[in-house]
Amino acid sequence: MTINDDRVALTGSVDRTDLTLTTDEILTAHVGGKLNVTTAVPLADARDLSIAYSPGVAEVSRAIAADQHLSAEYTWAQRLVVVVSDGTAVLGLGDIGPRAALPVMEGKSALFKQFGGLNSIPLVLDTTDVDEIVETLVRLRPSFGAVNLEDVSAPRCFELEQRLIEALDCPVMHDDQHGTAVVLLAAMRGACAVLERRLADQRVVITGAGAAGVACANILLAAGVSDVVVLDSKGVLVPGRAGLNPVKEDLARRTNPRRISGGEAEALAGADVFVGLSCAKLPEHLLAGMAPDPMVFALSNPDPEVHPDVAHRYATIVATGRSDFPNQINNVLAFPGIFRGALDAGAPRITEAMKLAAAEAIFAVASDDLAADRIVPSPFDPRVATTVAAAVRAAAESADGA
Amino acid sequence: MTINDDRVALTGSVDRTDLTLTTDEILTAHVGGKLNVTTAVPLADARDLSIAYSPGVAEVSRAIAADQHLSAEYTWAQRLVVVVSDGTAVLGLGDIGPRAALPVMEGKSALFKQFGGLNSIPLVLDTTDVDEIVETLVRLRPSFGAVNLEDVSAPRCFELEQRLIEALDCPVMHDDQHGTAVVLLAAMRGACAVLERRLADQRVVITGAGAAGVACANILLAAGVSDVVVLDSKGVLVPGRAGLNPVKEDLARRTNPRRISGGEAEALAGADVFVGLSCAKLPEHLLAGMAPDPMVFALSNPDPEVHPDVAHRYATIVATGRSDFPNQINNVLAFPGIFRGALDAGAPRITEAMKLAAAEAIFAVASDDLAADRIVPSPFDPRVATTVAAAVRAAAESADGA
Repeated sequence: MTINDDRVALTGSVDRTDLTLTTDEILTAHVGGKLNVTTAVPLADARDLSIAYSPGVAEVSRAIAADQHLSAEYTWAQRLVVVVSDGTAVLGLGDIGPRAALPVMEGKSALFKQFGGLNSIPLVLDTTDVDEIVETLVRLRPSFGAVNLEDVSAPRCFELEQRLIEALDCPVMHDDQHGTAVVLLAAMRGACAVLERRLADQRVVITGAGAAGVACANILLAAGVSDVVVLDSKGVLVPGRAGLNPVKEDLARRTNPRRISGGEAEALAGADVFVGLSCAKLPEHLLAGMAPDPMVFALSNPDPEVHPDVAHRYATIVATGRSDFPNQINNVLAFPGIFRGALDAGAPRITEAMKLAAAEAIFAVASDDLAADRIVPSPFDPRVATTVAAAVRAAAESADGA
Repeated sequence: MTINDDRVALTGSVDRTDLTLTTDEILTAHVGGKLNVTTAVPLADARDLSIAYSPGVAEVSRAIAADQHLSAEYTWAQRLVVVVSDGTAVLGLGDIGPRAALPVMEGKSALFKQFGGLNSIPLVLDTTDVDEIVETLVRLRPSFGAVNLEDVSAPRCFELEQRLIEALDCPVMHDDQHGTAVVLLAAMRGACAVLERRLADQRVVITGAGAAGVACANILLAAGVSDVVVLDSKGVLVPGRAGLNPVKEDLARRTNPRRISGGEAEALAGADVFVGLSCAKLPEHLLAGMAPDPMVFALSNPDPEVHPDVAHRYATIVATGRSDFPNQINNVLAFPGIFRGALDAGAPRITEAMKLAAAEAIFAVASDDLAADRIVPSPFDPRVATTVAAAVRAAAESADGA
């Protein structure tokens, strides 16, 4: 699930912005799809044809046959991002299958082009078997340069991403995990700056242990936050809790340092930060039980865990996944620059250091204009993708040199 | 092998045209590849983003989830041609692998756009196993609308095409077979018109029983030519000949009505048409032994089976695969219009009737300006693709109604 799905604005029941859209308008905009392929070379006459196709192209094929690395120079593949989904966890819609998922993937590819300057194509798969998805992408490996996994259900998404990282010598990232995590970390840095607090000192509670919840916990730990407590629908993750899958068991061991157990009430008592990624409502009395002036990241869509107006009774900083409230936590701040930076560096994978660098870069862009209602930059700020890309590239190249 | 590979012009040893190209010029034109993806919708502000991506796109996904057929309306997939190759028979270069094949496939995708107005992407596969290629495309089926197989070696290409036609409910065509065959048939119609002969009466000899040779024999039989003799490197195909693979055995049963045996000398004695698809040189004395004023289609590249100057000592009509001689037999006359027509019709496959209609359409475009050195239209004649597409669509729809 991407975190900026926002169905409420569609229904017309909420209309505080200029974003009210009609279904007709949306469907009309989608007729024929949202992507086109264009030719990057002229094909107007016989000479053009002789260069781009036969006989000229034989020279290029011969050169690559002699040195496979030249495919990076003379084809589009090396910088082509495939947006891959099996359609099992699409927006807030769930397991709707690959055909229904395709418009989302086309949109993602369009964003890669618009914000990252990268060519991207969607590949939706008529299988949900992890082995088969890995096998398919391994067979297609010469066709692309990076994989953006999208809208794959948890916990399969964890295994699938790990298997692909191991099988493919190119950047692979499940954006629902890491794009979300990177933007959350950037936003939390922005919030800490506004509130003049130290990030590492924050006690953070994350509700939801799916793709985004797990990744957010991991990046906060990597960024030095030591007190992270994660809850799933059955309560706080504690090592050895009955029925934990391996991903949750592992996360339980690395979080919850005070080894609390129970539910939201126990977790939130005295906590500094609420990160909602669960769709479960947050009762106001639990907000009241948090530490003074907590940060509230109510990221579920279309309905935040708590209405921003309610959250603001307790909190200076409130963020959601919605475009019609301030502080939208939107993955588009991260993924175009992350992939662009990784590909610019020729990096074989996207490391934790590169993700942390991306978050710092997003924070850096916001930092000259921070305010309680501006803890992240606008996705349309042209500095975002270039700054993120440069930071990610530097992190990749620094690791190379290390 | 596509039939318009033409390495001689590259070497500079032949320079009768303005098509002499330098390797530097060709490689420079290929830097970064020959394709781009562009966005078909605006993405300039939050409202655009809300339509093309979240939350608006959820409306489209929901609509398709409720009615899978709507994916044809609201995504690019239905009209997207994937150019698929395993790199086993690339131009005249042979089995150079998928990475080295990719520039050719990018070129093909570019031609689909330029000449057919169709979006197309290349998919090159790191497997040569027919089962695995079929399985891969079945898994990717929701991502595309048609398959152009390219540069797959014979006889695997026959099984692969047939298996894909059976497994996928969309147009599938191995262009090296059928594109070549369609253009050859159109050219032969043009030649017959110039020479005032009946196509069905021609005695045709085809040297080469690979992808193109088999398909050319089949389309000529389908067009009513009864006397077709096919040779492979070991001589004339005769039923029961030792060592024939199933494709050749089947072809032997359907051709060679006079049941001749032997080699080129026996086959060409008294023949009206020579179709060279074998790379083997045609000695001049065999030309002399053909029927008076034979037609010579010397289609191997880069070196035609017989030099056109030599052929013209005997023949009024001489065609090659080369762009630097008249009468170039170039697949680009066929495949953009064939796929465009099939997709316009929503046809689930490309039938023999559609291929025959394509050949007739190419001939029809040429027919108002036919001459001995103009038996096919120029690939840059804008009428070609539209006329072919309309004819193919009509053939598809007529079959639907039958």
